[in-house]
Amino acid sequence: MERVAIIGASMTQFGQREAWIRDLLAEAGIAALEDAGVASDAVEHCYVANMSSGEFEGQGGIMNMLAHDLDLLPAYAQRVDQTSSSGGAGIYAAWQSVASGASEMTLLVGGEKMTHRTTGESTDIIASITHPEEYKHGVTLPSFAGMTARHYLERFDAPRESLGKVAVKNHKNGADNPHAQFRKEVDLETVLESPIVADPLRLYDFCPITDGSAGLVFCPESVAKEYADEYAVVAGVAGATDTHVVHERPDPTMMNGVVESGEAAYEMSGYGPEDVDVAELHDMFTILEFLQMEGLGFADHGEAWKRVEAGDTERDTGDLPINTSGGLKSKGHPLGASGVAQGVEIYEQLVGEAGPRQVDAEVGLCCNVGGFGNCVITTIMEVAA
Amino acid sequence: MERVAIIGASMTQFGQREAWIRDLLAEAGIAALEDAGVASDAVEHCYVANMSSGEFEGQGGIMNMLAHDLDLLPAYAQRVDQTSSSGGAGIYAAWQSVASGASEMTLLVGGEKMTHRTTGESTDIIASITHPEEYKHGVTLPSFAGMTARHYLERFDAPRESLGKVAVKNHKNGADNPHAQFRKEVDLETVLESPIVADPLRLYDFCPITDGSAGLVFCPESVAKEYADEYAVVAGVAGATDTHVVHERPDPTMMNGVVESGEAAYEMSGYGPEDVDVAELHDMFTILEFLQMEGLGFADHGEAWKRVEAGDTERDTGDLPINTSGGLKSKGHPLGASGVAQGVEIYEQLVGEAGPRQVDAEVGLCCNVGGFGNCVITTIMEVAA
Repeated sequence: MERVAIIGASMTQFGQREAWIRDLLAEAGIAALEDAGVASDAVEHCYVANMSSGEFEGQGGIMNMLAHDLDLLPAYAQRVDQTSSSGGAGIYAAWQSVASGASEMTLLVGGEKMTHRTTGESTDIIASITHPEEYKHGVTLPSFAGMTARHYLERFDAPRESLGKVAVKNHKNGADNPHAQFRKEVDLETVLESPIVADPLRLYDFCPITDGSAGLVFCPESVAKEYADEYAVVAGVAGATDTHVVHERPDPTMMNGVVESGEAAYEMSGYGPEDVDVAELHDMFTILEFLQMEGLGFADHGEAWKRVEAGDTERDTGDLPINTSGGLKSKGHPLGASGVAQGVEIYEQLVGEAGPRQVDAEVGLCCNVGGFGNCVITTIMEVAA
Repeated sequence: MERVAIIGASMTQFGQREAWIRDLLAEAGIAALEDAGVASDAVEHCYVANMSSGEFEGQGGIMNMLAHDLDLLPAYAQRVDQTSSSGGAGIYAAWQSVASGASEMTLLVGGEKMTHRTTGESTDIIASITHPEEYKHGVTLPSFAGMTARHYLERFDAPRESLGKVAVKNHKNGADNPHAQFRKEVDLETVLESPIVADPLRLYDFCPITDGSAGLVFCPESVAKEYADEYAVVAGVAGATDTHVVHERPDPTMMNGVVESGEAAYEMSGYGPEDVDVAELHDMFTILEFLQMEGLGFADHGEAWKRVEAGDTERDTGDLPINTSGGLKSKGHPLGASGVAQGVEIYEQLVGEAGPRQVDAEVGLCCNVGGFGNCVITTIMEVAA
């Protein structure tokens, strides 16, 4: 079977936007097609990764809206929802559309419009993806993160500062990303003294609420060669679920969805953790960066914090730069967009378009997490020419 | 490439159900796996076709819920939304998952829980999928149907009674479907004298608001042979979009999404309209059955009504039985479930499990319509052994 290539990428400004989901999707969609040099009438399938446009805006049918606005008709258009991993699921859907032979040119756009709602309203919408057996007791995603962080720090004798260093690193990277919501560095003291949200986690351990979108263009490798001298190919992609009821998991510090999707993606690609040159992990909370590093084999269980402390994940000096984009922490987290934006960063790193954030990379990985690890997608890309 | 088979099907009771979306999805999912003889741990991918669980129930993450309740972990789980054609899009997604090699056993469950909301609330949720440029003027899907029906009847000199006969036929078929919402026949007089909803269409020209779900199990044909002596294969499947703004279409009586998806599905299958033995069409409104018959080549433009008048689409006496299940009109229309339930009826007809509704069929077609033809999926199945 022919490999599936990625030949174009885009990302809108993330942050508080004076634009509706319709505008955001169109902005990223047009930019991705332009980046790929693909005309709208060449698009055969179009996927929109979005968690909750109905709840946030009262607008459904947004894939029809995008197909209409970008003049893609009669292209097939569908919305992909996998909660906060909708973007990664969109990558998987786009890959399947090309790999199955259903489409020779697939546009994926992920987006979410959130900031017009209050933080309380947004939190309620997001909490609706948790299991009602837990939500009825008032448990939200940040509280899962707080409990898990406390357990991790105590069990593995890890310093609180190591979590803070994730935030410092990702803000430093985000300062070089023109599309990031927060383009400013923060020091460790600021992180450690910010207001408590879910003890021991504080404000700077959490990603913000964000508007934004991102796009990717997929096609068979033989078609890619008509459009680009250098492109990326999806070497491996796989998804997995974990228990919807979080407290049923045997070990809260090991996310089985990460482990399972990672193992399957590695197997499909023929690569292992040691082959990955750059990674985008789902740092919705700083503790998640540790859990994904360990679940994906970048560190032994309980030891990710040591690699962070040692500087291994720093962009310019480490041997495994993580979240060169700034991550969700600094770049922002418009739910359905985030998994696609992870793919955009890895694509740009592989084809040498990452500007001041550029690292030396031939193989990259992204891991998109839905809920509190309820569903996870791992994608491995490599550069090709 | 190996063909994709369907080896099991299920449908819950449609109607007003004392059950939430979670219960409905689990009920159909368990029944589909049982029908296929597939153990839960064999499932690799799980798709949930659903339009609006967030808006109807305030519940997200329903694919995680289903994967959890059916003990499918760590199977991949994702929600497919394509408004009222979500079920057909689910068939396409399930097909792609198997055809791409991503999954060797895929469970698709489509469902929607609607009747706990008032008709006004449901209408608002459904209207949110139309284009805001038209919705702001108060145009809803039933009003599009009314205007289109008037235009059709006048332009093609078709009698009003021909539309009524679609409702009579589909109710007659639904009376033999134990899972249908309305298991009673109606006479033409009742249809023609029912209250006006959107002139010239009356109450009995419209499908009801419904709770329910349906399931299908997909795998490669080589795997199907391990599970079943007789099964169906997806011979062709394709989707297409039309303008989101309905009034931009050159001819309101010819749905381009139906034409495009039909032509592509025929081409993929090697069959033409003349080869189809039985069809399930999306009769959300009676006029849609005419438009799909014509768009799919079952009748010339403007002449579907003549075939209905001649009895060609009757179950027991016609040469092209349409909506043997009772259609959306009598069976009910739980949005995300309907496209899957169409597939269930065609599957059961092909493998000889349709009971009192059984017709003689080797090739069947279903056409699932989203919005007012905004997005359409056509699937062609054939029996295999």
